[in-house]
Amino acid sequence: MTHRRFVLARVPAGALTEDCFRLEEAPAAEPKEGEVLLRSLYVSLDAANRAWMQGATYRAAVEPGGVMAGGALGEVVASRHPAFEPGDLASGDLGWQEYAVIPGKALMKETRSEPLSHLLSIYGITGLTAYFGLLEVGQPTAGETLVVSAAAGAVGNVVGQIGKILGCRVVGVAGGPEKCRWLTDELGFAAAVDYKAGSLFKSLRAACPQGIDVYFDNVGGDVFEAALFQMNLRGRIACCGAVSGYDSAPPAHGPRGVPGMIVVKRLSVRGFIVMDFFARRAQALAQLQAWVSEGKIKVVEDVIDGFAKLPAALVGLLHGENRGKRMVRVA
Amino acid sequence: MTHRRFVLARVPAGALTEDCFRLEEAPAAEPKEGEVLLRSLYVSLDAANRAWMQGATYRAAVEPGGVMAGGALGEVVASRHPAFEPGDLASGDLGWQEYAVIPGKALMKETRSEPLSHLLSIYGITGLTAYFGLLEVGQPTAGETLVVSAAAGAVGNVVGQIGKILGCRVVGVAGGPEKCRWLTDELGFAAAVDYKAGSLFKSLRAACPQGIDVYFDNVGGDVFEAALFQMNLRGRIACCGAVSGYDSAPPAHGPRGVPGMIVVKRLSVRGFIVMDFFARRAQALAQLQAWVSEGKIKVVEDVIDGFAKLPAALVGLLHGENRGKRMVRVA
Repeated sequence: MTHRRFVLARVPAGALTEDCFRLEEAPAAEPKEGEVLLRSLYVSLDAANRAWMQGATYRAAVEPGGVMAGGALGEVVASRHPAFEPGDLASGDLGWQEYAVIPGKALMKETRSEPLSHLLSIYGITGLTAYFGLLEVGQPTAGETLVVSAAAGAVGNVVGQIGKILGCRVVGVAGGPEKCRWLTDELGFAAAVDYKAGSLFKSLRAACPQGIDVYFDNVGGDVFEAALFQMNLRGRIACCGAVSGYDSAPPAHGPRGVPGMIVVKRLSVRGFIVMDFFARRAQALAQLQAWVSEGKIKVVEDVIDGFAKLPAALVGLLHGENRGKRMVRVA
Repeated sequence: MTHRRFVLARVPAGALTEDCFRLEEAPAAEPKEGEVLLRSLYVSLDAANRAWMQGATYRAAVEPGGVMAGGALGEVVASRHPAFEPGDLASGDLGWQEYAVIPGKALMKETRSEPLSHLLSIYGITGLTAYFGLLEVGQPTAGETLVVSAAAGAVGNVVGQIGKILGCRVVGVAGGPEKCRWLTDELGFAAAVDYKAGSLFKSLRAACPQGIDVYFDNVGGDVFEAALFQMNLRGRIACCGAVSGYDSAPPAHGPRGVPGMIVVKRLSVRGFIVMDFFARRAQALAQLQAWVSEGKIKVVEDVIDGFAKLPAALVGLLHGENRGKRMVRVA
């Protein structure tokens, strides 16, 4: 049996382009002892995919010639691991390929539910990142002002919606007037700031007349700096990602005000990745399911059909095309 | 009765110079209801004094024409506050003046002990800053690598000595080979890095072969950046001060790697000021007293005689002249 896969043809020097990937036909491997063969159903697109190409992060770098890495939801076709049998659903780093052979211990079993895409969005890494990052790291309380960047993105929109549930005044930072309108009109954010419109500092100040208590940072760079200077005493910054620096040369300098503002305002600035909190995954999923079923969280997905569209889907994501969770439906 | 005082003659544009201060003779005020008249005994010199001239921080800015602010130890001469009577010792922001009238509620009563200077060093803000900042914010455990900057300074040397008591491998960053030798030979630090010698990044790496678990930051700037890139997973940065930026124009940019390194390494970067922990001051003082009496902490002081030397003492401190806690003996 052969299948399609994308390999990284070359490491992008600047902004990612589609020709950094090469489509190949290859024989699908057989699972060895402890391994599982899966058919990919949905591949998740994440800004972090771009960071993986640049070097080691919390995982090893994706090397040229290797299959492009990526989270995905798959269905078990054959299993030589006792925890999985054909027909099971599982998620993990299946990569950009139609079939994948993965050690069973690197897979997370998923409970079948409809629509399946939710297992990669609100009930996947995305939703859990928003949930744990906001509750455990940001620790907002009712009445506080919460600012979230990349607010129309996969994690950001969920962070904002959870913030609203907790009684925060939620302000989103996003690119372009349409996304900003969508955040206020459709998702009910108190305000939205268009970082592409210029005068970011003033716009953010106008949107946060009481200052910022919690900043959930997905982007780093200028937005981080603007937020930093407007944090309130004992404010918290949850560092989730730094997408502003992923798709270009590393920034020559970091945000001004570090560490001065951190001292003066006694801020807590903390990085996290969602796996740090996986011991409490079941509890978090139950809460997210309740909020979704009560209509308190709108699940926002951007599903693109066709395996071949993966490179374009990632390039577009890095240009901010998507609202909510972007993924490619493979089959 | 007249007394001497220094007023801020002008706000320094760049590095502080002695002519930014003006010595005046002025009548000493009488205490009103709730106030206390004190005779100043020792004035504390702190890098933060310089930051106060530049604008509001955790306190209002020192304004030109006003008495220069500064922590000091004084003896009560007259009191219209029920908690104080003549002969009592108290510390607070008495400013650079021989006599000060201060609201009683802004003073901290001190227990008379010998030498009195210890009430401004190890048992004062300095020692408590080191104690709480390291234990509560840095949270080191035995066997971890602790890096402290401005390590020969008032707070830094105590941080390092407490780190040793806790079983950490302590590495100090200081300016010049003499201070570095002193840190290793006299205070028993495992290693010391001279930030003035160039190749800071490499020297720090060589001094920390296991990476850095806790970085106690007094300086910000280049040393912060060098430490940031060498932090271990789940490392902690205690942000105590940013002296590298106090005595010059604000830096054009912050450290690279913010927030990227914070995310990837899941760091916690937290600012504090010692007053945040004052509820547990008595307990901290008891611990510090025990360590001093057991010979586990050497109290390092740099006492300058003569009220008139205050401006020179502060300028010199900002140039890194001092080892340990610098203060001026007034009377």
